[in-house]
Amino acid sequence: MARLGREVRPVSYPRGEIRASDFRVVEVEVRPLRRGEVLVRNTWTSVDAALRLRLRERAPAGYFPAFPLDEPMDGIMTVGEVVESRADGFTSGDTVWHASGWRDYAVVEAERPALGGVGTLTKLDVRSAPPQAHLGPLGASGLTAYAGLFHVAGLREGDVVWVSAAAGAVGSLVVQLAKLGGHRVIGSAGSDDKVRHLVADLGVDAAFNHHDGPLPDLLREAAPDGIDVYFDNVGGDHLEAALGALRRAGRVVICGMVSEYGAQTPPPGPGNLMLAVTKGLTIRGFRGSDHTFLLPEMRRRMGSWLREGRLRHRETVVEGLAQAPAALAALLRGDNTGKTLVRIEDVPHRGNADH
Amino acid sequence: MARLGREVRPVSYPRGEIRASDFRVVEVEVRPLRRGEVLVRNTWTSVDAALRLRLRERAPAGYFPAFPLDEPMDGIMTVGEVVESRADGFTSGDTVWHASGWRDYAVVEAERPALGGVGTLTKLDVRSAPPQAHLGPLGASGLTAYAGLFHVAGLREGDVVWVSAAAGAVGSLVVQLAKLGGHRVIGSAGSDDKVRHLVADLGVDAAFNHHDGPLPDLLREAAPDGIDVYFDNVGGDHLEAALGALRRAGRVVICGMVSEYGAQTPPPGPGNLMLAVTKGLTIRGFRGSDHTFLLPEMRRRMGSWLREGRLRHRETVVEGLAQAPAALAALLRGDNTGKTLVRIEDVPHRGNADH
Repeated sequence: MARLGREVRPVSYPRGEIRASDFRVVEVEVRPLRRGEVLVRNTWTSVDAALRLRLRERAPAGYFPAFPLDEPMDGIMTVGEVVESRADGFTSGDTVWHASGWRDYAVVEAERPALGGVGTLTKLDVRSAPPQAHLGPLGASGLTAYAGLFHVAGLREGDVVWVSAAAGAVGSLVVQLAKLGGHRVIGSAGSDDKVRHLVADLGVDAAFNHHDGPLPDLLREAAPDGIDVYFDNVGGDHLEAALGALRRAGRVVICGMVSEYGAQTPPPGPGNLMLAVTKGLTIRGFRGSDHTFLLPEMRRRMGSWLREGRLRHRETVVEGLAQAPAALAALLRGDNTGKTLVRIEDVPHRGNADH
Repeated sequence: MARLGREVRPVSYPRGEIRASDFRVVEVEVRPLRRGEVLVRNTWTSVDAALRLRLRERAPAGYFPAFPLDEPMDGIMTVGEVVESRADGFTSGDTVWHASGWRDYAVVEAERPALGGVGTLTKLDVRSAPPQAHLGPLGASGLTAYAGLFHVAGLREGDVVWVSAAAGAVGSLVVQLAKLGGHRVIGSAGSDDKVRHLVADLGVDAAFNHHDGPLPDLLREAAPDGIDVYFDNVGGDHLEAALGALRRAGRVVICGMVSEYGAQTPPPGPGNLMLAVTKGLTIRGFRGSDHTFLLPEMRRRMGSWLREGRLRHRETVVEGLAQAPAALAALLRGDNTGKTLVRIEDVPHRGNADH
């Protein structure tokens, strides 16, 4: 008796904001396992701003390819439980992560590299952290924050660090990692609630709501003597303000440019790049998936900090697989705090005996 | 009897293109030397695109300050002969460089740092190279090319290198240094004559005139498999094209952005900076004067290459101090090849006995 599963598929590439009509949920028959594969019932699936880059005709050069229309979305981090295994090293009941998200049942080839290695099927240790933490601080978000701050930024003692989208999945980790490193940290976000969260829960030294005034003024107030490192999740006016505020030999780490993801035509870049020359600045873009060699180290260290309570993380949980597109739209609007997750409901086994 | 000298002074900040009326030549009395000073008769003075950054109300943050109006321009590399010395280590007849350019007689304080150290009064070895070479390949242009390519770009074996404004003072050295390092080198310039010079005299592997078509197409033709390093002297559309052509982990070294120096309002930056994230690119701005520690090494190595004929350099020489502004205007228009220099004529001693 074949098992039925559900998949969220894009049916059109959104123009600007994401709409429910850009997706549909389809019921599909789960095919029998081949040798080397496992069947996973997904319990949590990730919602990431960068998915927007793949929800268009062509993804940017060098990035993962665009999601084909009307097919399951491959390359989204997901946590689940193994239901059946024909692969060595995996047995029924194992908690795993993999990259076949936005569906409730996934057939996953055990050895197949996914998402540059981050998303390859991996058994998770869930004794000390709940499974969904492996989609946030112990997963791709954690890797991105850890690699960006400790391996890309060229952090030096005493650096003043500004993080934008600081209440987001990655930003909220970056600000805390920078604080653990003894830095003065400025966080910015798009709502007063987030600003309160940054100060009260995440311990930043100064925070501002970027809607509250011209960015250069807000930044000058938060960091009167300038900044040394800017961790960019936003792009656009934020990047331009950072170039203005950076001190000599300052560094920009570009993790993402969420302000531009929905644009029909790319907005122009910062008009003050010449400051990179006059101030000797370094601007580096990076992807967490280029740093998979750091995964074991990151999980060990972040795991300790989480257990010791030195690292906090918040989740925005959306209930039900069908809500994944709405969750992404909310994330891109700036509505969410911390890691955005979809909890996938357990639909009683549906079979189709006659199929 | 006081000696009279001439100075070229800015009298208004140019709007867009530089005009003769933005400057005037004034005759001034050369003041008597104090202890620790030397009097230099300047023989050659430098003309550099970056001077344009200081010919405005405010220079960019982090750069040398704007030239005050109706004062001699301090901070322009110049070569001359010591006429009189009250400083230890300098005697009449010495050939020196210093930073009090665009005038025929300069009183220079021997120990006073100028131009971040590059322009501090220095005795030159003119046995193996003519004095004016110390304003080009053995001076600030040489230091900028050498530091940018060998210390900022993070060159790796096999890198394909694109250099814009490749027939200019810095670019023409960068292409040759990259060739000496065994790299495939693409040079671009703004005229067919310059393109011929790049191929025939400087040995680049491919060259194009950027007026000949859309830059991405020209670049694709010259480097079908992409580039690894872009040495930017131009900014604007050149930088944007480079970001498109760079391969994974590529690097941009921004030396200058001559396309933007005359703009009344800064033009927008590249609209494709997101490629820095997806391709893991590094963009670094720098100034030669931040690398004065490399001066001795650079002069030794570049000096050898020049003597061995492995490094060639061309000069655009303009005759007469009063022509310096016109020389700068021509340089900024893209008219000049190699290092632009003004040869300062020897005006017979003029004294004013009654003064």
